[in-house]
Amino acid sequence: MRITRGYQDWPAGSVLVEFGRTRVLCAASVQDGVPRWRTGSGLGWVTAEYAMLPSATNTRGSRESVKGRIGGRTHEISRLVGRSLRACIDMAALGENTITLDCDVIQADGGTRTAAITGAYVALADAITYLGAAGKLHDPKPLSCSIQAISVGVVDGRVRLDLPYEEDSRAEVDMNVVATDHGTLVEVQGTGEGATYTRSTMDQMLDFALAGCAQLSEAQATALAEPYPGELPGSGK
Amino acid sequence: MRITRGYQDWPAGSVLVEFGRTRVLCAASVQDGVPRWRTGSGLGWVTAEYAMLPSATNTRGSRESVKGRIGGRTHEISRLVGRSLRACIDMAALGENTITLDCDVIQADGGTRTAAITGAYVALADAITYLGAAGKLHDPKPLSCSIQAISVGVVDGRVRLDLPYEEDSRAEVDMNVVATDHGTLVEVQGTGEGATYTRSTMDQMLDFALAGCAQLSEAQATALAEPYPGELPGSGK
Amino acid sequence: MRITRGYQDWPAGSVLVEFGRTRVLCAASVQDGVPRWRTGSGLGWVTAEYAMLPSATNTRGSRESVKGRIGGRTHEISRLVGRSLRACIDMAALGENTITLDCDVIQADGGTRTAAITGAYVALADAITYLGAAGKLHDPKPLSCSIQAISVGVVDGRVRLDLPYEEDSRAEVDMNVVATDHGTLVEVQGTGEGATYTRSTMDQMLDFALAGCAQLSEAQATALAEPYPGELPGSGK
Amino acid sequence: MRITRGYQDWPAGSVLVEFGRTRVLCAASVQDGVPRWRTGSGLGWVTAEYAMLPSATNTRGSRESVKGRIGGRTHEISRLVGRSLRACIDMAALGENTITLDCDVIQADGGTRTAAITGAYVALADAITYLGAAGKLHDPKPLSCSIQAISVGVVDGRVRLDLPYEEDSRAEVDMNVVATDHGTLVEVQGTGEGATYTRSTMDQMLDFALAGCAQLSEAQATALAEPYPGELPGSGK
Amino acid sequence: MRITRGYQDWPAGSVLVEFGRTRVLCAASVQDGVPRWRTGSGLGWVTAEYAMLPSATNTRGSRESVKGRIGGRTHEISRLVGRSLRACIDMAALGENTITLDCDVIQADGGTRTAAITGAYVALADAITYLGAAGKLHDPKPLSCSIQAISVGVVDGRVRLDLPYEEDSRAEVDMNVVATDHGTLVEVQGTGEGATYTRSTMDQMLDFALAGCAQLSEAQATALAEPYPGELPGSGK
Amino acid sequence: MRITRGYQDWPAGSVLVEFGRTRVLCAASVQDGVPRWRTGSGLGWVTAEYAMLPSATNTRGSRESVKGRIGGRTHEISRLVGRSLRACIDMAALGENTITLDCDVIQADGGTRTAAITGAYVALADAITYLGAAGKLHDPKPLSCSIQAISVGVVDGRVRLDLPYEEDSRAEVDMNVVATDHGTLVEVQGTGEGATYTRSTMDQMLDFALAGCAQLSEAQATALAEPYPGELPGSGK
Repeated sequence: MRITRGYQDWPAGSVLVEFGRTRVLCAASVQDGVPRWRTGSGLGWVTAEYAMLPSATNTRGSRESVKGRIGGRTHEISRLVGRSLRACIDMAALGENTITLDCDVIQADGGTRTAAITGAYVALADAITYLGAAGKLHDPKPLSCSIQAISVGVVDGRVRLDLPYEEDSRAEVDMNVVATDHGTLVEVQGTGEGATYTRSTMDQMLDFALAGCAQLSEAQATALAEPYPGELPGSGK
Repeated sequence: MRITRGYQDWPAGSVLVEFGRTRVLCAASVQDGVPRWRTGSGLGWVTAEYAMLPSATNTRGSRESVKGRIGGRTHEISRLVGRSLRACIDMAALGENTITLDCDVIQADGGTRTAAITGAYVALADAITYLGAAGKLHDPKPLSCSIQAISVGVVDGRVRLDLPYEEDSRAEVDMNVVATDHGTLVEVQGTGEGATYTRSTMDQMLDFALAGCAQLSEAQATALAEPYPGELPGSGK
Repeated sequence: MRITRGYQDWPAGSVLVEFGRTRVLCAASVQDGVPRWRTGSGLGWVTAEYAMLPSATNTRGSRESVKGRIGGRTHEISRLVGRSLRACIDMAALGENTITLDCDVIQADGGTRTAAITGAYVALADAITYLGAAGKLHDPKPLSCSIQAISVGVVDGRVRLDLPYEEDSRAEVDMNVVATDHGTLVEVQGTGEGATYTRSTMDQMLDFALAGCAQLSEAQATALAEPYPGELPGSGK
Repeated sequence: MRITRGYQDWPAGSVLVEFGRTRVLCAASVQDGVPRWRTGSGLGWVTAEYAMLPSATNTRGSRESVKGRIGGRTHEISRLVGRSLRACIDMAALGENTITLDCDVIQADGGTRTAAITGAYVALADAITYLGAAGKLHDPKPLSCSIQAISVGVVDGRVRLDLPYEEDSRAEVDMNVVATDHGTLVEVQGTGEGATYTRSTMDQMLDFALAGCAQLSEAQATALAEPYPGELPGSGK
Repeated sequence: MRITRGYQDWPAGSVLVEFGRTRVLCAASVQDGVPRWRTGSGLGWVTAEYAMLPSATNTRGSRESVKGRIGGRTHEISRLVGRSLRACIDMAALGENTITLDCDVIQADGGTRTAAITGAYVALADAITYLGAAGKLHDPKPLSCSIQAISVGVVDGRVRLDLPYEEDSRAEVDMNVVATDHGTLVEVQGTGEGATYTRSTMDQMLDFALAGCAQLSEAQATALAEPYPGELPGSGK
Repeated sequence: MRITRGYQDWPAGSVLVEFGRTRVLCAASVQDGVPRWRTGSGLGWVTAEYAMLPSATNTRGSRESVKGRIGGRTHEISRLVGRSLRACIDMAALGENTITLDCDVIQADGGTRTAAITGAYVALADAITYLGAAGKLHDPKPLSCSIQAISVGVVDGRVRLDLPYEEDSRAEVDMNVVATDHGTLVEVQGTGEGATYTRSTMDQMLDFALAGCAQLSEAQATALAEPYPGELPGSGK
């Protein structure tokens, strides 16, 4: 896995995350204010939009803006990414600011949603640093933990982490696990693909996934140990 | 829980399922042929659409047909219901027939998606009986197991099954489990709501859910022990 | 005809109306305030939305929310229901409250729009009782009359009331009449189906329809003679 | 009333109809073949689309193509125009040809839908002449009658024909009547606007409307007595 | 070319412009206030919408409101017309008023977009006269120049002005030029149609176009020399 | 300017083009067959879709797929890119193959449409190499020239090439020129932004633009002198 911070110049956080051939661009844009239904609450908001470039997949996909509607899969993943990232942030500390996480898949080879979540956390952390420097946070440490996600599948009866597309498409079970660096769970989504699975397979997949997330958490921490990759408000930089 | 078969006259299967105040109408309509991308494969298809009447909720919801687009939640649940029911059916045995499962929520008080799956299985079983009587199946027993679903949550630190809306909305963790009467899992979706959860909470929720599903499986079997509630093709009935 | 009040728990009025095999669920939801264009007028508003469950018809219909647009027939009937019910209510007495009438067809066998209007009146009456108990009306009796509707057709040259779908689809003339319990007309819509009709046929159809509406009016009155089927605000009930 | 045939050069029939300040352009375009659901039946098809230019009304209306959806009123009138014109034509004689009637309101001052129907009949008659000359009809006389429409209202308690917008908007009852030159009815739509009306008012409005339609029928016949206003296929003209 | 002012009664400016068989109705409607993003700026706004009647073309086109989305060509031309007309007006002099230019093609035979711009200028000038009479302008002369547009093409190697559709469709190069009566350029759009063109062809096309625009400018001036074709606010007329 | 070929693994051509801070990913995907209206003609087809990532701009843009419709600017640029690239290709030599050019803006700082065209040509050339190796071309050299595009503007009275956003937004005139390596023009679009411009400014802008395009043409040729950056069908590579 490779994490490149500061990939774009304009958003407060912009991270290119690469897992094998999968490449996802995660951008965190900050905006004053919150959606109308939350105005006046003193709480911030974090939301996400996931999308795939038509050219990202083996066979060109059609463009959802041209079709005029977002497909079920896109909706589902956007909601998952937003929900996952909201788990690590104290909305009162964020104050009435909105952070939008755009996860755009540049190239897809399995595990795009989990790569998106893992990268989005790093972009979110950069956006928080930016907001802090701009004096917009109510509390200097709104992030209570880091968030990682990994996919785990069963192929030919064996549990495996982070399958590329070719293997993923013939997995019997497919599970996405979102976890924190404290080892707790945020979200578990496990699906039998034309097959059901036993409780003990479930347990084994969770073991693998939590171990994988622990490694991703270290990679995120290493990436974030470097200074903020752009110019911070109010700094000479 | 109450299961009423034959609730409507036209669809091959029509089941009203009631869980507390939650009431979902699950209809299984059969159609010759399969979607274009599957034509000629010899395989059948099962798909689902979930929706809520505007009047089903505490505060009237807006109508998605009027808004001109389906929301993310609706998309997500429709896909979940379809995927779950496809886990129990042998598509080759079904032959090139399509079964559409319409799950329309008449009244909502928590757990509508799991009620929809549990009811949809019964409607599907009726539709299979209908197709068998019409001589349209390639194999007389296309269903390999029954499908149930239940929600389980953690409220005030305690694991609880099938929460009504008022409690569900303040649950710390919310998990939906789809299982089979063989005790295997089809789908697990667990989400921390503004909180994360430990591996041991996860394990306890799965124990509760599998026990709950076993009970639902019996209720389904009892309901299906009665004869088909309408007129079967080719029967004197 | 059968009228069941209090069919759902949440809306202020909820009525299941059954005419032969036709079953329509009519819910009246109340909301503070009126649409923007009416704000500050001191007048209330009544609007309606009609829809059909995909499983309600002989052959499964496609879902308008999935198609992303409402068909002409749906639009036309929604407008008819709203217009018809607005004929019986004093908007100044209602005050700046909105009542939305959702008429969802559970099962269709001819005459769904007239059943919807007849049932919606009963739901509206319950919603008015609710608003009265909540102290929200400017005048205690905003309803000046009751509203009924019936369909009348000419089949094989004979005038007939309330045809089931099979006969309706081969009617030469089809007329929907909305009337009041005072015997006056609210709306008349008569259409030749591939045929034209004489003035005397028109007169005869009106005679039949007004007689039919008088009977429906009595059935509504009988149903409404029972007490309000739920808990009223400010009552011990 | 003024009827101008041959207003546009391309459609087989193109008629500008003017009633007071109301001006509607009615074009009848012919096309080989029929919609898919009718293919192979040997029957033709007639359909209509009604629309209003944004600049046609007193206050500029918004453009439905920009809003991305057609309003209920537009839908309703398009369906009414199509249904009305289908009443005069023998679909078997038409053969598998489609005639589309586009009724575009250039200027609106009340009665646009009835003007549209009256003008559309003349455009349809021209399109039939065109198809006949092209040798595409199965029978030379597919039109069994002519079609007219008129609006009639009650203003200040008096029945009046064809009200301009200013009076129409304060009419107590508004009725649109579509009739044939044989004096029979095709469609009657009568609506109380915030008022109900008696059976005897209904009768009087029908009398007025049928008398008005008879006059319109003569005006149509006079206009159609002139030769076809363009070049006919296979003619030297 | 023929310019008819006062074609419709309601808009402040309404002009029918005819170029050969091409006929475009250009209406300028005035409205108090400006779009939200411009409110409080003290500046006015001019916008345009272009559309074609389905019956305007040789083969009937489909209606964009029915398709539910505006095509690329329509979008492009609407933007071009708005941009072109904004070039001649001093927005501060206009004050916070909005003028909407609706250009509806009644009949198309090449050059509809350039006819639309040329006609829209005349409608705009009438709307300005209207606003002046109503005392709504901040400065009595907000128009700094007049705007004309013409199309020029290369057919069979020869440069030609304002081609009818039949020739336009086989032009090798197609250029639209928007100019002012001062001889300056507002917009130039030149496209090779399956062919590229040399710099010297480009120069020759510009020469032709500017000469053509000068003639159109005179025709506009002649038309506008006549008095305002309707009733002006505050005048006895 | 920097051109990176082979940026993505799946499309037949994938080029990242960078102009200052502007970065556009241009992918050329190949597909057997052509759109229905072109089937059987023996001719190929080239089409383009342009889009901007929400995070590409200074202030986050909204996602067109979420809005459910494509904006006018997107439509306009997509059409321009497709038209420009079709100018260099012999459709008969291409045979019934479709090439889709996806131009997705990763970062925007002025000149995204011209960068898209310049990059799309390189991607197209790679796709042609791929199709040639796959034996799918009717003629081995379907490209008759190369295509470049550049923007030129007038800022503070001086003509300047390829302005970054900050200067572009205050340009008085903005012109996009698409040219070929033969020095001929494909498309010229020049717009006065709140100002008009003289014929001599136009001439000077064209001079600058053609000189700039000649340089871009060399950069394209240099980039394409390297071997195809991926695996070609039928090669050992």
